[in-house]
Amino acid sequence: MQNTSKQILRVGIVGYGNLGKGVQMAISQNPDMELVGIFTRRKPQDLDTKAKVISLDDIALYKGKIDVMILCGGSAKDLPSQVTNINKMFHTVDSFDTHAKIPEYFDMVDQSAKQNGTLSLISTGWDPGLFSMARLIGQSILPQGHDYTFWGEGLSQGHSDAIRRVEGVKDAVQYTIPKQEAIDLVRSGENPQLSTADKHHRVCYVVAQNDANTSLIEKTIVEMPHYFSDYQTTVHFIDQEELNKNHSKMPHGGIVFRSGQTASGNKHRIEFSLALESNPEFTASVLVAFARAVGKLAKQGQTGALSVFDIPLGYLSSQTPQELRKSIL
Amino acid sequence: MQNTSKQILRVGIVGYGNLGKGVQMAISQNPDMELVGIFTRRKPQDLDTKAKVISLDDIALYKGKIDVMILCGGSAKDLPSQVTNINKMFHTVDSFDTHAKIPEYFDMVDQSAKQNGTLSLISTGWDPGLFSMARLIGQSILPQGHDYTFWGEGLSQGHSDAIRRVEGVKDAVQYTIPKQEAIDLVRSGENPQLSTADKHHRVCYVVAQNDANTSLIEKTIVEMPHYFSDYQTTVHFIDQEELNKNHSKMPHGGIVFRSGQTASGNKHRIEFSLALESNPEFTASVLVAFARAVGKLAKQGQTGALSVFDIPLGYLSSQTPQELRKSIL
Repeated sequence: MQNTSKQILRVGIVGYGNLGKGVQMAISQNPDMELVGIFTRRKPQDLDTKAKVISLDDIALYKGKIDVMILCGGSAKDLPSQVTNINKMFHTVDSFDTHAKIPEYFDMVDQSAKQNGTLSLISTGWDPGLFSMARLIGQSILPQGHDYTFWGEGLSQGHSDAIRRVEGVKDAVQYTIPKQEAIDLVRSGENPQLSTADKHHRVCYVVAQNDANTSLIEKTIVEMPHYFSDYQTTVHFIDQEELNKNHSKMPHGGIVFRSGQTASGNKHRIEFSLALESNPEFTASVLVAFARAVGKLAKQGQTGALSVFDIPLGYLSSQTPQELRKSIL
Repeated sequence: MQNTSKQILRVGIVGYGNLGKGVQMAISQNPDMELVGIFTRRKPQDLDTKAKVISLDDIALYKGKIDVMILCGGSAKDLPSQVTNINKMFHTVDSFDTHAKIPEYFDMVDQSAKQNGTLSLISTGWDPGLFSMARLIGQSILPQGHDYTFWGEGLSQGHSDAIRRVEGVKDAVQYTIPKQEAIDLVRSGENPQLSTADKHHRVCYVVAQNDANTSLIEKTIVEMPHYFSDYQTTVHFIDQEELNKNHSKMPHGGIVFRSGQTASGNKHRIEFSLALESNPEFTASVLVAFARAVGKLAKQGQTGALSVFDIPLGYLSSQTPQELRKSIL
């Protein structure tokens, strides 16, 4: 089934934010891949990279020269507007992560891919992506059970932005942190009912402007509806230097639990967890492994849209099926 | 690609030890499956079950009446001698776990399956199986990194048997327990070199015969080559009543780590862990989910041998691809 000869996968990157930079790094760690170029809406000379940079307007010139295009734009605007243009010409991989809109996004991508004879994997990364795979495995193996997903410790970009919009705030970061007592309760096998707020607390590091009223800032944050009011929230005021020094990375991670029982009543727990020093770099590494799979499946003639549930895991690896059975099965 | 209509999967069980009993339990938890019968080399009337029991000699009579046959025999003798007879007539799933012999076993099963137009998944369960999948995902996403596998806390049948053969021992169980300090070292991201003995210690519960010399028994156990001499081993003497009461389950589990870094030097950790109150019941639950996948793939006309690396995860689920994308992606 699987192509056993090893060939170089020619990859293109669309978009050069944190995720695009992470993809560039990940490609450098995979000897069976080659970065053909980075496509950008910006002026190519404005990008600080040694890789070849190409205007997105010229992407059609690369048809036939790139095996898989990895789309690194955002889910709100970039991906929905780009994907069906790009998969007219290229096989694609993306990290579309607006969960509620995945079905319609899939159908749109699928139609375009099938019309153009291309293959497009949507919504990969770690959630959606690896965490989805963990949920599927857990539910399939232990049909009588409960799912729990914890996020963090991790930097939440949306919550950090919300704090930065508070009057008197110069800069801020927000970490989502799982509550250890909630994790312990899940591990106990008691199958508790837990809301998102029961499972996490929020810790904020805030740089206030010189003349700001820090008590008022703290009150505004902890009472902010949707973002903080339902959560146990802690606010620390620090100076810009400390924020730059200790809070410039984008760590993240989390745990997916399946807590279930077999028909005898015996309890079983499956845990899949991630601890990541850089969320975009790890997400990019997932995209790159799945790009390898898309390249192989496209070579076999598959077309249309795919999710992570449609891909045999062996396709993620640079090893042949024979090597995999021998070395890691 | 995937068949979206829901149909009952007709399953047969070959062998009725702990694993076969677990498969029977797991089928009862999956409304899309039906147990057609249990095939045994024993006299059918000797099996204590309400299910239909059939002599293994009559298995050919069930050709066309069973979609997937789940082979629950042992890897040492049963599976190698049974599998190519049974996959002449049926699609099969097994848990062949002699790692070193997997390549030749695969080739043997593949040849027979292809000649007979059947589909056979080999070596599923949790190790090989889910742990293999975790290793593959980790290596594919973080190509620069280290793998660590810890086993336990879990009952080791082989080690328990070895203790029972010591003179003066009436009964015994042995638990393999991961060393917390080794787990912590791996989680620290230091990528230590760790032998199996560095990662685990062994705890034995022994019932001595009335007149036995317990000091000698303890010395014989802790100095036993291969089994115990390289390990930190603790021996507790208890009475038969306590052994029966507290040590009659077959718990197991473990952790697969991938500890790696992206090209920037940022560190990332992937953990997949299991905590199981009954090793055979959980293993059986894995086999049953994979039997569903084999049923679907066989219906699409696939033949030959497969490993867990060849199966798209969506096939494990009773849900349709559309439902999966909506509910858990």
